[in-house]
Parts: sequence; structure tokens; C-alpha cells
Amino acid sequence: MHMLRVAVAGASGYAGGEVLRWLLGHPEIEVGAVTAGGNAGAGLGTIHPHLFGLADRVLQETTPEVLGGHDAVVLALPHGHSAAVASALDDDVVVVDCGADFRLRDESAWTTFYDTPYAGSWAYGLPELPLVGGARGRDSLAGTRRVAVPGCYPTAVSLALAPGLAAGVIEPDDVVVVAASGTSGAGKVLKPHLLGSEVMGSMSPYGVGGVHRHTPEIEQNLTAAAGAPVTVSFTPTLAPMPRGILATCTARAAHGVTAESVRDAWRTAYEHETFVHVLEEGAWPTTSAVVGSNHVTVQVALDERTGRVVAVAAVDNLAKGTAGAAVQCLNLTAGLPEATGLLGSGVAP
Amino acid sequence: MHMLRVAVAGASGYAGGEVLRWLLGHPEIEVGAVTAGGNAGAGLGTIHPHLFGLADRVLQETTPEVLGGHDAVVLALPHGHSAAVASALDDDVVVVDCGADFRLRDESAWTTFYDTPYAGSWAYGLPELPLVGGARGRDSLAGTRRVAVPGCYPTAVSLALAPGLAAGVIEPDDVVVVAASGTSGAGKVLKPHLLGSEVMGSMSPYGVGGVHRHTPEIEQNLTAAAGAPVTVSFTPTLAPMPRGILATCTARAAHGVTAESVRDAWRTAYEHETFVHVLEEGAWPTTSAVVGSNHVTVQVALDERTGRVVAVAAVDNLAKGTAGAAVQCLNLTAGLPEATGLLGSGVAP
Amino acid sequence: MHMLRVAVAGASGYAGGEVLRWLLGHPEIEVGAVTAGGNAGAGLGTIHPHLFGLADRVLQETTPEVLGGHDAVVLALPHGHSAAVASALDDDVVVVDCGADFRLRDESAWTTFYDTPYAGSWAYGLPELPLVGGARGRDSLAGTRRVAVPGCYPTAVSLALAPGLAAGVIEPDDVVVVAASGTSGAGKVLKPHLLGSEVMGSMSPYGVGGVHRHTPEIEQNLTAAAGAPVTVSFTPTLAPMPRGILATCTARAAHGVTAESVRDAWRTAYEHETFVHVLEEGAWPTTSAVVGSNHVTVQVALDERTGRVVAVAAVDNLAKGTAGAAVQCLNLTAGLPEATGLLGSGVAP
Amino acid sequence: MHMLRVAVAGASGYAGGEVLRWLLGHPEIEVGAVTAGGNAGAGLGTIHPHLFGLADRVLQETTPEVLGGHDAVVLALPHGHSAAVASALDDDVVVVDCGADFRLRDESAWTTFYDTPYAGSWAYGLPELPLVGGARGRDSLAGTRRVAVPGCYPTAVSLALAPGLAAGVIEPDDVVVVAASGTSGAGKVLKPHLLGSEVMGSMSPYGVGGVHRHTPEIEQNLTAAAGAPVTVSFTPTLAPMPRGILATCTARAAHGVTAESVRDAWRTAYEHETFVHVLEEGAWPTTSAVVGSNHVTVQVALDERTGRVVAVAAVDNLAKGTAGAAVQCLNLTAGLPEATGLLGSGVAP
Repeated sequence: MHMLRVAVAGASGYAGGEVLRWLLGHPEIEVGAVTAGGNAGAGLGTIHPHLFGLADRVLQETTPEVLGGHDAVVLALPHGHSAAVASALDDDVVVVDCGADFRLRDESAWTTFYDTPYAGSWAYGLPELPLVGGARGRDSLAGTRRVAVPGCYPTAVSLALAPGLAAGVIEPDDVVVVAASGTSGAGKVLKPHLLGSEVMGSMSPYGVGGVHRHTPEIEQNLTAAAGAPVTVSFTPTLAPMPRGILATCTARAAHGVTAESVRDAWRTAYEHETFVHVLEEGAWPTTSAVVGSNHVTVQVALDERTGRVVAVAAVDNLAKGTAGAAVQCLNLTAGLPEATGLLGSGVAP
Repeated sequence: MHMLRVAVAGASGYAGGEVLRWLLGHPEIEVGAVTAGGNAGAGLGTIHPHLFGLADRVLQETTPEVLGGHDAVVLALPHGHSAAVASALDDDVVVVDCGADFRLRDESAWTTFYDTPYAGSWAYGLPELPLVGGARGRDSLAGTRRVAVPGCYPTAVSLALAPGLAAGVIEPDDVVVVAASGTSGAGKVLKPHLLGSEVMGSMSPYGVGGVHRHTPEIEQNLTAAAGAPVTVSFTPTLAPMPRGILATCTARAAHGVTAESVRDAWRTAYEHETFVHVLEEGAWPTTSAVVGSNHVTVQVALDERTGRVVAVAAVDNLAKGTAGAAVQCLNLTAGLPEATGLLGSGVAP
Repeated sequence: MHMLRVAVAGASGYAGGEVLRWLLGHPEIEVGAVTAGGNAGAGLGTIHPHLFGLADRVLQETTPEVLGGHDAVVLALPHGHSAAVASALDDDVVVVDCGADFRLRDESAWTTFYDTPYAGSWAYGLPELPLVGGARGRDSLAGTRRVAVPGCYPTAVSLALAPGLAAGVIEPDDVVVVAASGTSGAGKVLKPHLLGSEVMGSMSPYGVGGVHRHTPEIEQNLTAAAGAPVTVSFTPTLAPMPRGILATCTARAAHGVTAESVRDAWRTAYEHETFVHVLEEGAWPTTSAVVGSNHVTVQVALDERTGRVVAVAAVDNLAKGTAGAAVQCLNLTAGLPEATGLLGSGVAP
Repeated sequence: MHMLRVAVAGASGYAGGEVLRWLLGHPEIEVGAVTAGGNAGAGLGTIHPHLFGLADRVLQETTPEVLGGHDAVVLALPHGHSAAVASALDDDVVVVDCGADFRLRDESAWTTFYDTPYAGSWAYGLPELPLVGGARGRDSLAGTRRVAVPGCYPTAVSLALAPGLAAGVIEPDDVVVVAASGTSGAGKVLKPHLLGSEVMGSMSPYGVGGVHRHTPEIEQNLTAAAGAPVTVSFTPTLAPMPRGILATCTARAAHGVTAESVRDAWRTAYEHETFVHVLEEGAWPTTSAVVGSNHVTVQVALDERTGRVVAVAAVDNLAKGTAGAAVQCLNLTAGLPEATGLLGSGVAP
């Protein structure tokens, strides 16, 4: 059978390394060119010693020539770099961008939160996202050749809250989210606050006050789910773990809902999904159960005292939050079963 | 000079051990009897190998005879046990209870959240709490002989939000709190989810949906601060660290407030406080900076997009969240300067 | 094609869960009965929430009836329980024991270190082990129906040191090993020192002074490698991580060896092995690179000042150290390619 | 009473911050000038947010003018910088160097392991070190004005092994040490392998093969203890914790020793020491018990099978391993009781 040949640009970072990990485990994909910026020339065995299947590969330069001639290219570049690389690739090559560049459909949202020119938007790669009226995120992905992989926080938050918004059991106008992320979400970046000595044993917030760049992407998704404008108070925090996001999301319950009708909205939304699991009543997501996997766990409760619904989701920021989603989108664009190569368990304990 | 002789009941747990750590470092206090339940007879050097100054002590039974004859007794017992022990002590002995038993002034709140009979309420030991009209938590502590030490979450959340409620810059009716706690907050309890293998690398929520026992205590404090009923959506999460609480708290901004007026409310509230520090603009609390100390860091921001104020506090759940607060209350009841023995730095990195 | 049907006895512990994780990812294996002792009746989704593919399974009792009728049975039982279970299974069923019960060929060694009756010995499942005269561990595995999976420490230590002993470049009579293990090596056991609050941020030794039960097993392997009696000073330590073993092993260099001849011994030993990787000169094993995988990394250096060779190996105690090895042995006994279902990368960062 | 005014040079790193933490807690010391290199001009509240007592201080340049006029100066500089700074200070000022520059008495050892010119040697600040013939490390410290603070690994290893060497119960010629250190031992250095994402959940060795710079210092101390040349095979490892060293040390038992005579040697050596604690038989050091403190725990066992003694010590690399030792030396040079300001407990859990 024909194997898809897939190149990875920006392979030396955490996202790029994770894309390679998933490609190596995919039965229909062959890893093609593997490129980097400043790390071009380095051996993959040095940069990613956990990728034993690619230990002898050398990182090439990220150029159109090197990336050309593949069935698909996955971009794992710093934001602002994807457009130039993508524009040099043939239109019939599938390009999956793990960066933020093509996620936002609203230019002004981009301009407010990012510091590079607006590049436009691509199909948004969150297949499971429930949308108002019964549509799903995957509906826009069939046949496309350009996909924007969602951000890690937007994946967790959107999957946590969209069922309730699409079903009308929570209100769109007062959503509050506090999410904890493992440190790999910040990338392999040499900043003092990311040193192990600083991180271990410590929790800290960042991007507080509605300024984190994932905010407009979360709102875009939730607005699509609700069919009405959603504004989100979003506070991310850095947690002492390498991977994983726990998103704790609350919204006001719609008038007249019950604990059972709330749970039904979530159960129904995901009952046919392979990767999104609404846990049994009383069980709550833990990031350890999803780390290393493309799975998402979700749970919801109605706080009758305050009239708020609390929905919690756990994802692996690098897997379903980035690289697993990229491969899921590759599957969809290639006409493969969506879950091909992605069914592995979480790695726990 | 006369040293205060202080006994500790329930000394084998994490809270009891931390009380001893602070008493050992106190220049005016001498550690008297040290008691336990099931661990009576064990050497402290075995139970708490970090307390070198008490390595040769043996845990005694928790009886009125053993606890009698001290200037003060600190109780660090499972909830429901403090009343019986306290009632056997002389009225002029200072009793500081680290448990929940005497914190709630509303019997129905107790009954809703706890499974033991209501024991009444004592003076509440959160000296820095700003209250409506300019009062402080410490006002009720002078001269008292019975003090209820606040819970760890209520300490963090109340100090984070009370300035805004007392000053009227945030609204009392839609408060949302998500807090992350280190595992010592769960005590030295042998449950599978508290094993290191489960905890490390994982975040998980618990007590979701308004059912955590600290909820009515948080509401009691914030209602006192606001001078109006406050209801709180409170979700605690377990974080992979031994100590520390990071409380991320949001409330709707009052009409007409500005980023500056918000910051002013917090700055003013704590400008004369020794242990509560409003950080410089742009700096946010990290739990590592307060671990091992009686200090609290706080920061606040106005999210103009959503009209919410986000206030964050970091405390050490065992120190300012329990044992440091107990010693601070001992100082107040004994007429010592409030900060005696409590000024130590955080232990970082 | 015929899928192998494999049952797992003792599936509720960490080893059993990891066996299931690997079986789920195996293209030629179907998970059959899944049994437990005290946890029989519980849902796997509750016990191992990371095993999404088995979420709806219920743990059965560990009985001959339940375990019968499979192609193979993997035992992940507390030591002392395997013999009784195995004896009730047909002789032509493959039985792979993750416990210690059948590892030691010397009854007196068993009796000295274990507290249950000696059960005999089975083929020892460390395929890559270099033996004196050019043999390999896998030579004894072809055609067998009963396999003892090595202990986690013995896997790491034996693979680290055997090349030098088999090649005669290190001396057998003064081997010193200090190894650090993640906490899952201690199992899902409710003891205070395994609580997250105790483990995080702490290193501690245990079983010091030659009393750890893996000691005779290490010596058995190294003696087989050397063709001469090897005695090992072995000190295990508990490290603040869920998984992984780092074994730091030293032995006196044989007369006349050079840094290059030492490295050659190791390179040659593993040049055709799929799972054991001698790193490039200057690179040293880290447990993070092998966690979640069946791979082992090894490095060696000659300390010319002291005349000692230092060999270091990193393994995942639950994967190559237990469950991955079990599946590798299943492959060998079933006549499948040894690496089937085992090639996945480490999960890093 | 006259407070000692003490300046700290190199205060922005982890060692410098920890020196300040201990000085702040010292009843007879006042913090004078606080200086840095590249961080001069920064606020201490930003650099060390845990040092609440110095939050408003600004780091000054490290110049003779700024450091002049103090009773003592503590240097916490990168190696190679101390000599120039010290030479500009008056001879009657006490200078305590936390760096390596003045630790080695053998110029050739310095030249072999370090890349800067040899600066000479100062009195070595390990007061508790047992020496052959009954002397102690502190004997050389009385009246001196220049003290070299020991390295963190040498502190742990020397205190672990010296009693046996001084008493002649272990042999000096085949010492093997494997030590695990928390990441703060590497300093606040921006290297990829020190990122939290890399460190958490991982153990790795470094400086393998006798090349770590602390090796000659360890040998110098043990040679002084033994009264005979000691050569040490030393392998350090990086552990996933911010602080703490666990040193696992083995040496061949001398002819005729017993488990009891071995334990006696250690017990006797430290029975009058305040900070070094030989644990009860069967109890082993854990780093968590000493973290944040100036205490050291030690245990020893005789492995009769291999004829080796295993001695283990736990220290906090930043406290007794650096800053606590510096303050202990300050006390000695100032004629204060040696333990002044240093008696605090470990911070556990």
C-alpha cells in the first residue's frame, strides 16, 4: 500500500518532536524530511533522544526544496513563520499548521493578540467540536488541503464547554475558565521561570486579565458552538508537570436545567466520539490518564447553590493538544479512518 | 523572661508537624506536651524526621491530664474531635484549633457540609482580613482564649478577594474561584489517589460542584468583607507539589472601576500588613516564593474585555494556611507582637 | 490472521495495568480475561482510567476457569502467588510471570531473600543479555512455555554491566551499583513513605546493605555473563518520579583495557539489538528518554584515575523493566518477530 | 549589641539568595550591601521574591567600594572570580567564599579540574569533619579571616565517609560514590537540560568517569580523614527535585569489623555535633527531612556478603551544602556560638 510521506518543519522543538513520535507510530505514514531553524545540522538522536526510530536522522534546513515532494507537511514553527513556508508548497500538498497563524477568522482578534501580520485562516482542526445545530468541527475538514491545528488550551476548554453551549443548557455570557498547563506548553524556551528549579513544587498564573493569546481562539470556538457571542475570562496557570492541561470551566446554568439534563447534554455530544470521554458520574478528569495519548476526558456538574455548571477537561497539551490533533487532521485529509495510529492508551502512572 | 509553654494535640499529622516546626523557631515559646491518637508511643524522630529539635520526644496520648498545665494548646485533630478535647481544658488556657470545628458561625452551613454535630464558633483567626467599614479580622482576636484557625483555601481566597469586596470595587454576587493545592492539604492519609505515583505529573479536580467543605467558610469571610451575601463557585484541584495553594479568583467589576482603582483597593488594604504582599504591577504570585513561610502574595488585574477582576493569592497551606496562622493567633492572644517568630523567608528555589 | 488471546491475572496493579497497555497496542494480540484479587468486580475504567480501550471491562476473579482457554496468560501477582495459579493452567498455554517467583535458579538464594517457599525456576526473559562465550538471553526462550520476566532493577543493571563481564574488560569481584527508581516500582501500595507529599522533592535509599531482593537475581545474571561468580553491592534509591530506573554501575577495569576497548565491548554487544542503545560518546542515559517505551539506553566510561569502569543504563521499570519484557517474551514464545508491538518511542518531555 | 554587618557579592544566583535567606534569619547579623554582576540594578523583590525582608533592596555593582566597610563579605560568585574581589578587601574583614576558588590545597588538582589560574587555598569550612587522630574541621577555623565554604557534594560525601576512615573501619583505596542532587546545584543557568520539562520525571548522570570538579575536593577531605591517600570513583546524578543531595557511598570494610563496630565509629564521630545526625538503626536519610535546614542525616550499614560498608548522607545542597555552611563559618570567625541562627528544622513534607 502507498504510505503517506510526511515532512515536519520545526522538528527540534517539543511540538515537532511530538509530531514525529506520532508519525513514527502511524501505520500508513512514513517520515520524510525533518527540518529545523537554528538546529539544522544537528542529529535527531541528540535533540530528541526518545525518538529511537529516527536516531540517525539529521535535521535539515527549512526550505521549499527540502519540504517539497511530500504528500503532507506538518509545520511546528514559532508563530508568524507558517505563511511564508506554506506559500512555497504546492496547493495539492496537505499542510497542517501546529502554530497559531491560521486559526483566527477575525483579523482584528489576531491583530489585538499577536504581533505579526494577519495571515488569514484555514480549516480549523478540532473534529469533535459540537456546533450549534448539530454540526461538528470535522465537517469543515473533508477535502481541505490546509488545516490549522487548535491551540492546546482552546482544545481543552472548547471540548469542555461546547456541549453545554450547543445544547443551550449553559449561558454564553459569563464564562470563566482557569486552566493549568504542564511546562512543555511553553516550549523548549530558555527563560528563568521555566527552569526545573523554579517550576518544581510551584504553581503560578500568567497572561492574567484576558491577555493570553489563546483567548480569542477559545471565544471563536465557543461562539461557533453557541451560535451566539461568547466572551471568556481565561486565566492560564503553569503547573509542575511536563505535560497535561486541566481546564476548569464554569458558566451560568440556563434557566430550568437539572443535573441530569446537564449531564445528558455532554453525554449526547460525545457518545459517538472515539477520543472524547465523558466520565462516569462522580469521576473527574486527571491529566495523568491522558498523558501520552490523543484522548480527552470530560466531566460536568451543576452547582445548584450558585447556579453554575462546572465542566472540566483533561488533555495532553502536546498530544491531543497539538501533535495528535495534527495527525488526526492528516488522517481526515487523506481519507484514512480518523483514529488511525491514534488509539494508544495514556501512559500512567 | 517567661516562655509560653504550648502543647500540641494531634502532632503526628502534617498540620501538627508544621505547628511544631513553627513553635521550635519561636523565641518566646517552649514546646510542652506533644500528643497523638494512633501514633501515641511513637518517637517524633520517626514520625517527623525533619524536626531535629524534638527527635528524642515521644508522642503521648491526647488526654486532659497530658494537655493540662500549659499556657496554650494547639489542636491539630481530625474534624469533630476538637470540642471534646477543648472542653476539658481550663477556660484561661488559650486553645487554638487548626481544625474546622469552630470556624462556622452558621449552624446550618456546618450541618450541610460536615457530618459531625455543630460545636459552635470561636473567634476566627485571620488577622489581616479586611472587613466592610474598615475593620480587620484581628479586631475580634484581642483578649480571646479560643481561636479557630482558618482553613487553607479560605485563607488564600479570602485574602485574595476581600479587599475588592470591602472597597466595593467588585460585585458580591458572581464570584468564581479555582484553586490548586499541594498534596499535604489532604493530610497524611493512605488513599490511592494520594500516592506519589498518582500525584506526580498530574492535576485533578475534586469536590466539584460546590460541595467542598471550605465553601461555606469562604462565603462567611467574603460576606463579612462585603457586608452583603456572597456566594462562591469554588473548585479545588490537586497539584503535583507537596505544599502551596494558588487561588485564582474572579468577580465582576463594579460599575465604573478602572484598573488603577482596582489596584488601589488591594494596595490600600494591605499596605500596613506584614505578611500580605501586593506584588508590583505585572508580577504574579508563585507558590514557591511563599512555601515554608507565613507570607501571602497577592495580585489583581481588571480584564476590561469581560468586565471581570482577577485576583490571585499564593499561600503555603501548612504555614500561613494552618500552622503559621495558629502561631500568629497565639501571639495575639498572648499580647506578643503579632509577627514574633513568623518573619522567615520562603524557601526557594 | 489468528490473534493471540492473552489473559492478565493481577491486572489492577501498576504492572498489570502496564501489561494491558502494551497488549492493547499489539497488532497480533487480543486482550482476554482480566482478573484481580481484592479488586475483582471493579471496572477497569475506574482502576486504570488511562486504558480507554478497556474502560467498560470488569475485573474478574483470578480462577483457573477464568484464565483457562487463552493462548497465553500473563501473571502480575504479588510474589508467592504465581506457582498456584500457573499449575492450574494447561502445559501448552504460555505463562509469563512478571513476579519474582520463578527467576532464581538457586533455591538457597531464594530462601535467603524471600519469605515464601521456593517454586523452582523458568526460562529467564531477558533476550538481550550477553553471556560468556557469545550466547544471549534469548537462546533459552525459543519454544518455552513458561517464562520468568526479569525484575526491573536486574534488567537495568544486567544490561549495563554484562557486556563488560562477557568481554572480560571488567573484573567480576568488586561490582558496586546504586540505582534510582521511580515510585511505581514499589507498586500501588498504601504506605506513608509512598505518599506524594513524602515522595515529591525527596530522594531516599532503601534495602541498603545487600538486602534488597533483586540482589541475587542481579548476581545470577552477571555471573552468567561473566562465566565466573559475581557479587554485587547493590543500593536502590527511591526517586521523585513515577517511572524510570537509572542504574549507575561500576566495576574495576581489567588489566590493560583502554577507554576505546571498553566502549567497543559495549558497542559490539548491542550493535544488533533493537531495544538496547549504546549512546554516542559523551551522551548519557536519561530516564525521560525511555519512559513509556521498551527501549534501554546505555553508556560507559573508563575512569583512569581510579581504574573503574562506570556503566549507566536507563529503563522504564514498568515497560522494559516489566510489561514490555513480558510482551517481548510472548512474541518469542509465539514465534512472532521479537519487536512486534514494542517499537514505540519514549514519551518525552 | 553590635550586629555584624555582612555584604553578599553575587546575590542574584541561587547560592546568593540562600545566603541572604540565612542572614535574614540570623539574630546577630544585619544584611549590608547586596551586589550582582549582570543583574546589578534589579530589585531583589524581582530576583528573589521569597526574600520578603529585602523586597525593596536594589542589587548594586560588585565593586570594592560597595563591599568595603562591612564586618564580613560572603562571596557567591562563579568560580574564578573570588580572588580579585577578595584581594580588594581589608585583611581584617572576614571573607567567606562559597565558590571553589580557595578549596584545594593542591595546585595540580586545581589545574587538572578547573580552567582558571590557581588562587591558593583558605581555611576549609567543614567544622564537623572528623580527621585522623581526633582533630576536627573546625580546628583550623578559629581566628581565620578567610574561609572556603565546601562544595555541596564534598560536604555530603565527606560527612558520610570520614568517620569510617578516621576510625580505620573502612579501607581508603576503593571508595565508590554515587550522589543525586537537586537541580539548584546547577545554578540558575539557562541550559536546555535544566528546563523543568526536561528535569521533571527524569534522572540522569553527568560528569561521569571521574571528571566532576568536586572529585579532588572529596579526595582531599577523605585523605585528611584517613591520614592516607583516598581515591574516589564519584558519579553525580541530576534528580527531579529543586534541592537536596543524597550521597550513597561505599568502601571496603576493614578486616575484622562488625556491623556494630561500624555503627559505633559513626555514632562516636558525631555524638557531640549539632547538625550531623546518625539516625537510629534501620532509618535511612531522606533529603526531604533536611531541605531548608543546616542539618545532615547519616546512616551506615555493613553488607557482609560483599564486605562493603554503605554510608549514606542527606544534605540540602544550598543550605548546609553552601549558605548554611557559610553562616556557620561566619559564626566561628566572629566568635559567636557555631549554631547561631542555624537551628531551624527541615521543611517537610
